[in-house]
Amino acid sequence: MSKARYVTGLRAVEQLLSRKAAGVVKLYAEYQTSNPRVESIMARATTHGIEIQPANRARLQQISGEIRHQGVVAEVKRDSMLDEAGLRTLVENRLTGDGNSELLILLLDGIQDPRNLGACLRSADAAGVDAVVVPRHGAAGLGPTVSKVAAGAAESLPFASINNIRRVLGWLAEYGVRTVGTSDVAEKTLYEADLTGPVALVMGEEHRGLGQKIAGLCDDLVSLPMHGTVSSLNVSVATGICLYEIVRQRRKRDRGS
Amino acid sequence: MSKARYVTGLRAVEQLLSRKAAGVVKLYAEYQTSNPRVESIMARATTHGIEIQPANRARLQQISGEIRHQGVVAEVKRDSMLDEAGLRTLVENRLTGDGNSELLILLLDGIQDPRNLGACLRSADAAGVDAVVVPRHGAAGLGPTVSKVAAGAAESLPFASINNIRRVLGWLAEYGVRTVGTSDVAEKTLYEADLTGPVALVMGEEHRGLGQKIAGLCDDLVSLPMHGTVSSLNVSVATGICLYEIVRQRRKRDRGS
Repeated sequence: MSKARYVTGLRAVEQLLSRKAAGVVKLYAEYQTSNPRVESIMARATTHGIEIQPANRARLQQISGEIRHQGVVAEVKRDSMLDEAGLRTLVENRLTGDGNSELLILLLDGIQDPRNLGACLRSADAAGVDAVVVPRHGAAGLGPTVSKVAAGAAESLPFASINNIRRVLGWLAEYGVRTVGTSDVAEKTLYEADLTGPVALVMGEEHRGLGQKIAGLCDDLVSLPMHGTVSSLNVSVATGICLYEIVRQRRKRDRGS
Repeated sequence: MSKARYVTGLRAVEQLLSRKAAGVVKLYAEYQTSNPRVESIMARATTHGIEIQPANRARLQQISGEIRHQGVVAEVKRDSMLDEAGLRTLVENRLTGDGNSELLILLLDGIQDPRNLGACLRSADAAGVDAVVVPRHGAAGLGPTVSKVAAGAAESLPFASINNIRRVLGWLAEYGVRTVGTSDVAEKTLYEADLTGPVALVMGEEHRGLGQKIAGLCDDLVSLPMHGTVSSLNVSVATGICLYEIVRQRRKRDRGS
């Protein structure tokens, strides 16, 4: 869980320095590099007063747990991990606050592949999700691969790893948050659902989709229309499509069109 | 290019047998397997009259070029590869035909990662894309990883690998096909564009996005709204979101709502 103290790869570290440099504790960079992007990252880290620790490739690999570190690893303060109580506080604050955007929670029930989890976090951040919720057991957790694929989102997006997902769905319902699950067999399509108002989007795992017990707790089940020979989409692509349909509906309502 | 004669992995082979068994020439399967899914695949292949060739793990790896073959490799007839002339014929037939769906072309200008290409093909198939177009050089081509991630779409979806992408954009315009490119800096969002009618969606590569020359040839440039700290989405996620916005707009128009 707290493994994701390292962000690896040129793109992810560049993003981190652009957006959240204050959270970077230390930068490990390959010495005598010939890569101008690594040099530029070091120059920016220096500007922000971040300590730079030269390291060779083997050391960078050891720190990050990632072979393809591309010569840079940033050590970051983690301030976005939530437990169930913290998640509940976040939800309460968002529902009672006077923010001009509505609550949006992404609940990923059992994604196995760290690359899929990373891509979901990147999309969640882009779509303005307030927190991502995953089960503590039997699913991919945060780690170097997730951080790299998430391009910075794993360090900034509130992330809750929870023992009892069904209990979370229970109290979200009590707060009036609508839970919308996706299912290949749902008759209603994503486009027929009203996704404005406080929503928790619930996505299943890669191969089996949403479990029956979780699906049974959702207020609404929706499917994506399938026009070809494949029977489903990659879970991170499906998550992106659903999140952006929520973004679209809210923008449309806010513009009164 | 013609390497993708093999489909690897349980899910992809299951899909293939369900949807396009006639295209399977031979099935290579691990002998003395204890996996019931492999046994079930073998039983279905037998039903379809497909020759089964027992093979050990090393042989399966050699055939497929993939370490994670999961005990099954299907050899398929490739009938979906197009050259530029074939693509043009397909476009002409679709534009003059009386099909009840409109032409949709996906042009991927330089995707590097085979996993991203595979996920794009899977989404393209699901969204009812007529053909996927990629540049012949400097981009990922079809191969075992693409096939596996595409979950069967790489074998069924018409795929054109083209020397001169700009020429294709030129004649698409002459046929009245609207070319819609995506760009992080476009002022118009995806949701403000009319995506009904014959459309070619043009996506750029992972890091640099759409090249200026290609962007300059597009009729419309659109962006996705970004609400968080990351500056862009994974290219296969962005492709899925754009394709499904096209699906949504066409469904809405067809239902007259």
